Amino acid sequence: MYSKIRVGIVGYGNLGKGVELALNNNPDFELIGIFTRRNIDDIDSNSNIISFNKVLDYKDKIDVMFLCGGSAKDLPEQCPKLAEHFNTIDSYDNHKNIPNYFNMIDNIAKKSNKVSLISVGWDPGLFSLNRLLAQTIFPNGQCYTFWGKGVSQGHSDAIRRIKGVKNAVQYTIPSEKTIEEIKAGKNPSLKKEDMHKRVCYVVPYDFEDKDRIEKEIKSMPNYFQGFDTTVHFITEEDLIKNHSKMPHGGRVIGTGTTNKKHKHVMEFSLSLEDNPEFTASVVVAFARAIYRLALDGKKGAFTVFDIPLGYLSPKTGEELRKELL
Amino acid sequence: MYSKIRVGIVGYGNLGKGVELALNNNPDFELIGIFTRRNIDDIDSNSNIISFNKVLDYKDKIDVMFLCGGSAKDLPEQCPKLAEHFNTIDSYDNHKNIPNYFNMIDNIAKKSNKVSLISVGWDPGLFSLNRLLAQTIFPNGQCYTFWGKGVSQGHSDAIRRIKGVKNAVQYTIPSEKTIEEIKAGKNPSLKKEDMHKRVCYVVPYDFEDKDRIEKEIKSMPNYFQGFDTTVHFITEEDLIKNHSKMPHGGRVIGTGTTNKKHKHVMEFSLSLEDNPEFTASVVVAFARAIYRLALDGKKGAFTVFDIPLGYLSPKTGEELRKELL
Ligand SMILES: NC(=O)c1ccc[n+]([C@@H]2O[C@H](COP(=O)([O-])OP(=O)(O)OC[C@H]3O[C@@H](n4cnc5c(N)ncnc54)[C@H](OP(=O)(O)O)[C@@H]3O)[C@@H](O)[C@H]2O)c1
Ligand SMILES: NC(=O)c1ccc[n+]([C@@H]2O[C@H](COP(=O)([O-])OP(=O)(O)OC[C@H]3O[C@@H](n4cnc5c(N)ncnc54)[C@H](OP(=O)(O)O)[C@@H]3O)[C@@H](O)[C@H]2O)c1
Repeated sequence: MYSKIRVGIVGYGNLGKGVELALNNNPDFELIGIFTRRNIDDIDSNSNIISFNKVLDYKDKIDVMFLCGGSAKDLPEQCPKLAEHFNTIDSYDNHKNIPNYFNMIDNIAKKSNKVSLISVGWDPGLFSLNRLLAQTIFPNGQCYTFWGKGVSQGHSDAIRRIKGVKNAVQYTIPSEKTIEEIKAGKNPSLKKEDMHKRVCYVVPYDFEDKDRIEKEIKSMPNYFQGFDTTVHFITEEDLIKNHSKMPHGGRVIGTGTTNKKHKHVMEFSLSLEDNPEFTASVVVAFARAIYRLALDGKKGAFTVFDIPLGYLSPKTGEELRKELL
Repeated sequence: MYSKIRVGIVGYGNLGKGVELALNNNPDFELIGIFTRRNIDDIDSNSNIISFNKVLDYKDKIDVMFLCGGSAKDLPEQCPKLAEHFNTIDSYDNHKNIPNYFNMIDNIAKKSNKVSLISVGWDPGLFSLNRLLAQTIFPNGQCYTFWGKGVSQGHSDAIRRIKGVKNAVQYTIPSEKTIEEIKAGKNPSLKKEDMHKRVCYVVPYDFEDKDRIEKEIKSMPNYFQGFDTTVHFITEEDLIKNHSKMPHGGRVIGTGTTNKKHKHVMEFSLSLEDNPEFTASVVVAFARAIYRLALDGKKGAFTVFDIPLGYLSPKTGEELRKELL
């Protein structure tokens, strides 16, 4: 029903590869090229790989640009540049800095008459939408976000910085006990230590160091202290074989009471075998929305809160009302 | 941050009472009056009860009218009349007839320069949004809707029509086994009989009739035949004491696979101790959206698919990005 949406991918990491893959399932998109800062001959892909330096040559050939760089350094540098020339979508996930990032991109895109949809994915993204639903449907209720079971990059990195650690993976695991309490309507007020457990798989250089390393992990402030933490020591072979996947997930639970006595629970949950591939599937659906906002003549920065969800579908309003409402 | 949204309620049944209650928790609304077709002296409420005959006197005094009549007869009659003069919101739930209902209201509201948001609640409503997310995020995936545990009015009525039955309540209960299979990624193709069980509480005029009644229930085509059905015979006292509540709930489960081997599960679930009170809380949040669409100068009929979810909140976009994204 639309002419194809011409898209580009900037950055060919986990998320960029996921977008390339997701586009295969969405025939209303046409992938024009993947832009990388690395030597294009080093990149293994069947798509059209293009040097990032040439990106401006594609100004009028791309309707929406998927920005798949890292949130820490890549997006704050790339998005301002690209929003001057392209409609963009990204999954910027540095929660604390989102307001600044939004304002910066909003100014640029308003001047360039482009639209930029920021922070799309599952958190921020789908989880944010569900926090909003919980808060507006239960104005006096509670809303809880749990993450996991999944790998936390930050916590894995923190363990790797301990002397004697060769490699490590840390899983964040939501506390089922706490979740049961919430669903039973007990409205617990929770410290973050009550909400998640931490399970670590650590490869030591020397297995003799086990006790010291375990003590250092468990006493690390902010990261592990106060948390229910389990440490397993394993070989690097075992780590690579059994802990190199990128599963993740989590849930948003909203609870509220009406007429003083009736309790309600609303829950949105995800269980993902591959975090970036799922995130990419979300981002691709939302790219339709940014394309349509552009067609509507909108400009500036937007978030998932600004998107009518019907805009995610290639179907007409009539089809959606008939098939899905 | 807004001036108060002036609202009226048309129809004071379960949903109408729920809206009256929900407005108490949402101080940005002002309830102008509740309109009923019944004798106003027969209605027990602290709100301003007004005869439905006088509704047009309130043309310029109400920003959004909550239509809380039944979907079978009240809404198809009341909404066309009221959409000529008011912005409206309803929870019309006759799924098959939604396209016709939408077109009828759309024509009227476009002429009257008003906005009407139809079919808001949880199904249709929140469940529809989650079916849309599942379908757009997993274009080659599966999406399943389960209802219950909750009372089905239609099935309870069907039992009551059997000779010898004095009263009855039927609970629809989702099959946990089927749900486990879905979440395990088995992508079962299901008959509706596999998805739900039916549990009936029946008050017979004469307990001697139990066997015949049970047989008639279990062999009733469309309603019970082929379903796992359990029938309990109880006294009317027991029925009134233990089965007069209106619990409901259900879930939408979307599954999909990326890169051929990675499975993902997305689930939205509700567990409600009172169906109409929860539905009313949803409708009140969406009433902000219809008010804002009206301020935006929109006209015609809309559904949940057309609403940016940020419009449900009294907060500014800036606050939402900071607190919830
Ligand atoms: N909102 C959400 O729910 C959500 C979920 C998941 C992820 N995210 C965010 O999405 C962002 C991207 O995540 P990611 O996992 O794709 O990060 P990543 O794999 O580290 O990729 C980031 C960038 O690294 C560059 N890179 C350099 N050398 C590379 C190499 N050898 N292999 C792969 N990439 C290389 C790539 O750019 P070049 O091609 O230009 O070198 C790539 O765009 C992160 O900030 C993450 O936090 C958000
Ligand atoms: N989308 C969703 O998720 C969802 C969820 C729940 C319900 N719904 C729909 O919402 C609609 C309203 O449901 P409801 O449970 O509020 O229906 P209800 O209690 O049967 O009320 C319907 C109407 O009946 C009239 N009524 C007549 N005599 C009454 C009496 N003695 N007590 C109470 N009302 C009386 C009321 O209008 P007057 O005051 O003018 O007499 C009232 O507006 C239904 O069609 C239902 O299917 C949708």
